[in-house]
Amino acid sequence: MDKLQLWQRYQDWLYYNQKLNLYVDVSRMNFDEGFYTSMKAKFAHAFDSVEKLEQGAIANPDENRMVGHYWFRNTDIAPNQEIKQEINETLTQLTEFTKKIHKGVITTPQGEKFTDLLSIGIGGSALGPQFVSQALAPLTPKLKIHFIDNTDPEGIDKVLGKLKDKLKTTLVLVISKSGGTPETRNGMLEAKNAYQEEGLDFSRYAVAITMMDDSSKLYKVVKDENWLSCFPMFDWVGGRTSELSTVGLLPAALEGIDIDRMLAGAKEMDIATREKNIKNNPAALLALSWYYAGNGKGEKDMVMLPYKDSLLLFSRYLQQLVMESLGKEKDLDGNTVYQGLAVYGNKGSTDQHAYVQQLREGVANFFVTFIEVLKDRKTKSIELQENITGGDYLSGLLQGTRQALYDKNRYSVTVTVDEVSPYTIGALIALYERAVSIYAYLININAYHQPGVEAGKKAAASILDLQLKVLNLLKNSNQPLCVNDIATKIDELDEIEAIYKILRHLSANDRNVILEGDLHLPSKLQFSYSG
Amino acid sequence: MDKLQLWQRYQDWLYYNQKLNLYVDVSRMNFDEGFYTSMKAKFAHAFDSVEKLEQGAIANPDENRMVGHYWFRNTDIAPNQEIKQEINETLTQLTEFTKKIHKGVITTPQGEKFTDLLSIGIGGSALGPQFVSQALAPLTPKLKIHFIDNTDPEGIDKVLGKLKDKLKTTLVLVISKSGGTPETRNGMLEAKNAYQEEGLDFSRYAVAITMMDDSSKLYKVVKDENWLSCFPMFDWVGGRTSELSTVGLLPAALEGIDIDRMLAGAKEMDIATREKNIKNNPAALLALSWYYAGNGKGEKDMVMLPYKDSLLLFSRYLQQLVMESLGKEKDLDGNTVYQGLAVYGNKGSTDQHAYVQQLREGVANFFVTFIEVLKDRKTKSIELQENITGGDYLSGLLQGTRQALYDKNRYSVTVTVDEVSPYTIGALIALYERAVSIYAYLININAYHQPGVEAGKKAAASILDLQLKVLNLLKNSNQPLCVNDIATKIDELDEIEAIYKILRHLSANDRNVILEGDLHLPSKLQFSYSG
Repeated sequence: MDKLQLWQRYQDWLYYNQKLNLYVDVSRMNFDEGFYTSMKAKFAHAFDSVEKLEQGAIANPDENRMVGHYWFRNTDIAPNQEIKQEINETLTQLTEFTKKIHKGVITTPQGEKFTDLLSIGIGGSALGPQFVSQALAPLTPKLKIHFIDNTDPEGIDKVLGKLKDKLKTTLVLVISKSGGTPETRNGMLEAKNAYQEEGLDFSRYAVAITMMDDSSKLYKVVKDENWLSCFPMFDWVGGRTSELSTVGLLPAALEGIDIDRMLAGAKEMDIATREKNIKNNPAALLALSWYYAGNGKGEKDMVMLPYKDSLLLFSRYLQQLVMESLGKEKDLDGNTVYQGLAVYGNKGSTDQHAYVQQLREGVANFFVTFIEVLKDRKTKSIELQENITGGDYLSGLLQGTRQALYDKNRYSVTVTVDEVSPYTIGALIALYERAVSIYAYLININAYHQPGVEAGKKAAASILDLQLKVLNLLKNSNQPLCVNDIATKIDELDEIEAIYKILRHLSANDRNVILEGDLHLPSKLQFSYSG
Repeated sequence: MDKLQLWQRYQDWLYYNQKLNLYVDVSRMNFDEGFYTSMKAKFAHAFDSVEKLEQGAIANPDENRMVGHYWFRNTDIAPNQEIKQEINETLTQLTEFTKKIHKGVITTPQGEKFTDLLSIGIGGSALGPQFVSQALAPLTPKLKIHFIDNTDPEGIDKVLGKLKDKLKTTLVLVISKSGGTPETRNGMLEAKNAYQEEGLDFSRYAVAITMMDDSSKLYKVVKDENWLSCFPMFDWVGGRTSELSTVGLLPAALEGIDIDRMLAGAKEMDIATREKNIKNNPAALLALSWYYAGNGKGEKDMVMLPYKDSLLLFSRYLQQLVMESLGKEKDLDGNTVYQGLAVYGNKGSTDQHAYVQQLREGVANFFVTFIEVLKDRKTKSIELQENITGGDYLSGLLQGTRQALYDKNRYSVTVTVDEVSPYTIGALIALYERAVSIYAYLININAYHQPGVEAGKKAAASILDLQLKVLNLLKNSNQPLCVNDIATKIDELDEIEAIYKILRHLSANDRNVILEGDLHLPSKLQFSYSG
């Protein structure tokens, strides 16, 4: 296609939303009218299913749950009065709490204003808040946020070490739907220990977001220890779509980000993505492009390239939203399908200097999504040469890369927003939530469960059980044992490799396990306990 | 294969290096003896080629350059006395300069000690320093580092905004081999402007790392403005293998990281990876695994999962090292091959909550590399339940995930180090540098050029040229013009879409371009200039 034909195609397919000041350009995905026509029936089904979902249909038959993250931004469409009232009360409570923290009505036990916020959570309880903080937190936020999002002791030490002098004015937010996520529980216990070591009463600093009923172990802790406050997580909000529920809104509000505008942007995008004409529905255009790129089977990776530093974490946020939703073994009819859509990327033009070499010339196993932001900065730019600013370069580099990739038959979608603001971030989140929802119906999978996550957790739990058995045996043995002896004695011969690794890890960490012998030869090593 | 057979396979293939205390485990890549045998001839050729490369052979025929990053850590193997002396002098100069900064012998013009370091660079001039800083910088570094690694005005404003009060004690490091990289030049000009606005003499804060000859535009600036200092980049060090040259060593040393230990770790790894028996060469084992996973064609992505927060940026570092080296259209014989190896990942166990669902159940288009760190933290851990620490969880989650993936025929490599230290980071960098080098010879491509990077840059430059033409026309036009008129008048009809986007961008940024009309209809918009 020559450049004038491409220009016509650009205009023919251009989606523009005046209220959001947002464009979606799929002209550089190479599908033809035949493909588009062939997809219409699938889309009709998807639009219909998405509509039912929003109205409260059970989308997640395994778990018998509704999917209702969009009710948070428009309580009028909640499926019943009870849910509507719950949401409204929660939003009021959240706003009131935030005001009291900012104004110093709620203070530390010593009567000081809170200055920092330590957020403890993982997955959906961290990725959204991290993305939004990086995108939107002011230079001097109301509370400065820090994250513990793993059970890495050294990582936790680093976060707590940086906070040390400020711990006494640091509010803690523990986010866990069930309270059963070990990484989050561990982070909470480590943080609690750090507060206690500073002579601070942790419960006077701690706020939770969790299911406020017996299903949550965290809620039990909150009540037993009389925490400062607790906000509800709802059964009908999944982790990866929780950014615009309490999970994302509370930390954002505490940082000083305008959450009403975030919700307004999402609400407006929800309206736009209910449209049943593919060409007029930006989420449908994305889903169409994903389907075309990977033959509806995820055969191409989606490389996310936002040309804006503040959007660096968008791809990490989308990794969860997209991959956890779409990466499924079975379709809704029980067929084995191994579905998914891999997502990676950081930011442009920086990534051009990392891997655009491969994108342009190497394995053609991807398509790109460019995110373009029209406004360069809040103030006026200096000219770096006559009539040229740094933002002109950034804009030119995006255009140039899109063109250079297309010249090599590497296809791309471009999403354009006017600026990075609470409103556009809310809209972008809602856009991709809906694109995932529509695409999941196109490929006939359940986007709202995650059966594969359990396997690793269960395997990890059994490793910890094994560790207790191994330690118990070693403590009661009066001679060194090799790993084969140990596995045999605890009747876990099948787990011999796991046992070896448990011992190797313990011996590296002053845990009273002594390892002797040649490290090249694991089965010859002798282990003993020196308690 | 049952678990006891896997344990035997684990031991049969286990690589352990006593000096580095480093393990490589490829037992969960499913290749058989037949595959291994079939690869031996290819490896013999690769080992031979790598040896010549180290001795100074021209590896990069397009650019007629040697590839010598390993000489920096072992000057005894430099191909001639002149290079050896250059390196030794540079290292001495670098160490002396760092000491003077730390001790306050070199100070700000006001006689204060420098407190912060602003690094301006992109690609190989940023990814290594960022990775190393995150991994190794002490909690209270000698100088606290900040990065401008893009030409995003808002991103630059954020970095400079955070530094504002400290700008007067912030040393600036500008890193650009040729001085021709626009993002870096733009960052330098923006930073210079910020210093000037604070009434500070930029040249008294500025240090460069560049080619110290006429080939570098940056070196000319350094001389013309009489900068504080300048360190050489060498022709024989490529951007993506520059972390253990001046590019990475100077910022690391300034932060207070032990660069001698980094170099020592890399030197020891270089020795280990010269071994010509595949099973005894950790880099060869990686290259073998990559080849097996992707049929020597990059058919599977490499997902990097370091179970350690401080290694979060390793995958971003490797994206450049691996993808820019291997992502090539042509092989050394000129055949069209579209080679490469896509890399992504962040950290475990965090990523388990993002996309292990897809890894375990979804598209099987990847293999995993786990990075395991045996030591949990510097101090003793608290027990979160009897005999179980947070580090035990992290270790168990790694083991569990490796097992859960293997159960679904998703394969993995595990690299184990005892701790994250300058020595192990130096070793890991050298390990992957060599794995890339060996793998490139296995697939017969040139790992040391990047012809595809130029296309995007050239296209961007032509967009900026176009902008000047468009602005010139509009300024001299006494009536509004549509984009078709503009393209016709400047005789660039083919570039009509690019012109539209230039105008859209200018009009969003108070650049005197007025846009009127319905944004849905690009060709109907009217543009004028109001200067």
